[in-house]
Amino acid sequence: MTVPAQISALENASPRDLRLRIRSGGWDRPTAGLAPGFAQANLVVVPRGLAYDFLVFCQRNPKPCPLIDVTDPGSPEPARAAPGADLRTDLPRYRIYRRGRLEAEETEITRYWRDDLVAFLLGCSFTFEGAMVRAGLPVRHLEDGCNVAMYVTSLPCRPAGALSGPMVVSMRPLPAAAVPRAILVTGRYPGAHGAPVHAGDPTAIGVADLARPQFGDPPRIEPGEIPVFWGCGVTPQAVAMAAQVELMITHAPGHMFLTDLRDEDLAAG
Amino acid sequence: MTVPAQISALENASPRDLRLRIRSGGWDRPTAGLAPGFAQANLVVVPRGLAYDFLVFCQRNPKPCPLIDVTDPGSPEPARAAPGADLRTDLPRYRIYRRGRLEAEETEITRYWRDDLVAFLLGCSFTFEGAMVRAGLPVRHLEDGCNVAMYVTSLPCRPAGALSGPMVVSMRPLPAAAVPRAILVTGRYPGAHGAPVHAGDPTAIGVADLARPQFGDPPRIEPGEIPVFWGCGVTPQAVAMAAQVELMITHAPGHMFLTDLRDEDLAAG
Repeated sequence: MTVPAQISALENASPRDLRLRIRSGGWDRPTAGLAPGFAQANLVVVPRGLAYDFLVFCQRNPKPCPLIDVTDPGSPEPARAAPGADLRTDLPRYRIYRRGRLEAEETEITRYWRDDLVAFLLGCSFTFEGAMVRAGLPVRHLEDGCNVAMYVTSLPCRPAGALSGPMVVSMRPLPAAAVPRAILVTGRYPGAHGAPVHAGDPTAIGVADLARPQFGDPPRIEPGEIPVFWGCGVTPQAVAMAAQVELMITHAPGHMFLTDLRDEDLAAG
Repeated sequence: MTVPAQISALENASPRDLRLRIRSGGWDRPTAGLAPGFAQANLVVVPRGLAYDFLVFCQRNPKPCPLIDVTDPGSPEPARAAPGADLRTDLPRYRIYRRGRLEAEETEITRYWRDDLVAFLLGCSFTFEGAMVRAGLPVRHLEDGCNVAMYVTSLPCRPAGALSGPMVVSMRPLPAAAVPRAILVTGRYPGAHGAPVHAGDPTAIGVADLARPQFGDPPRIEPGEIPVFWGCGVTPQAVAMAAQVELMITHAPGHMFLTDLRDEDLAAG
């Protein structure tokens, strides 16, 4: 993949250095390519009253919702994933949802913070895509410089309290002979969606038209390639939005939280 | 390992058949050796008021507390691990704790059940011990027909709300040359404690005397063998007891819940 010039100037920066730069307003762009080798994470913030259901939902649906850290209520510090970080200021871009509707996009959320908010960090596909690249596997949307294609499936998530809905998946096309290796390589990272949930016929999981993803960009699929589907971190946001929760704050797409965890910390072991 | 005659008569019974037999009062003994290939589980039941902290505790301490199912409040059915089962009657033996003290041991808990109770199922070492046996690795306490040795360590668990305390580990001695294989084989099962947390010098994790375990039987250790330590399912019980919770119900040691999940369902992937 081509590395933009802004990123190559930061290529030796640690996750902590990058978080401080983001905190001070010096970076509000997507985080793909930053701090290679370190895990990036999806952010979901909800009030304590919904946090139990969300926690059970993640436990019941670990493929789309691989939970890597939960904050204490009211604390913006992810004590496992990045001690000393502040989740109110250390992501480049946030989205604020009220009753399931997008209300605002912000570069920090200090004024939205409350003593009853709980933050969840979920593993991100950047971790397993890095492993695919190291294994010599093609990652089409990186080659093409676009967003991964995401689809709402007919696979039901296991419900938890007020939360239910279909699983959202991301899709990467692969030559048929590369599919077993892709399964093995990504299956090493249960903390970052793990192995695919499906490979092959999209209609088997309720995806009618690969050319029309619900999120992201339409994919380029070459002859002889198999569509391979992984659980996607958009799932919990879509489900929580469908539940029309009073307040939910997430990262903006592609503007992830940079943790101090190594990608390998999300591997099984 | 030697299989008792009562078990060999049941060797073709499914987990469901065995649960029904237990429910009807036809089996109140330990479950080791029953339904080989299927995962057995630790049970922890607490009131909803403590369930959030316990859930976060498990998320933060997955080595000792590998969570495989959580019931809806008031429901005794583990919908993922064993649809149709009843956790009030389907284990051979239970322990009832009030304010951290053992109050009773029972063969069913129907009269203790309440609408606000939540049940947690945690993966069990039987899963990874089966994998060790299949890999040709010695499992000393199975060879010797005794209980595994368990120790309270100086390794702190990551606290969650009211819950904190040291990690409890189980120890299996292995010839030095067998340690890497044991790590790889057990590391495949993050849903059942996964890879060891330590191998070698016990004092490095605060264990002063291997001959005096806090739980289980003293181990036989041969010359040239290395003590290898895994996170242990006694940890959450010890921690919840230390918090003197109003009511906690667990399985009695060795009297586990027989799930419909395959051991391989607790493997990473």
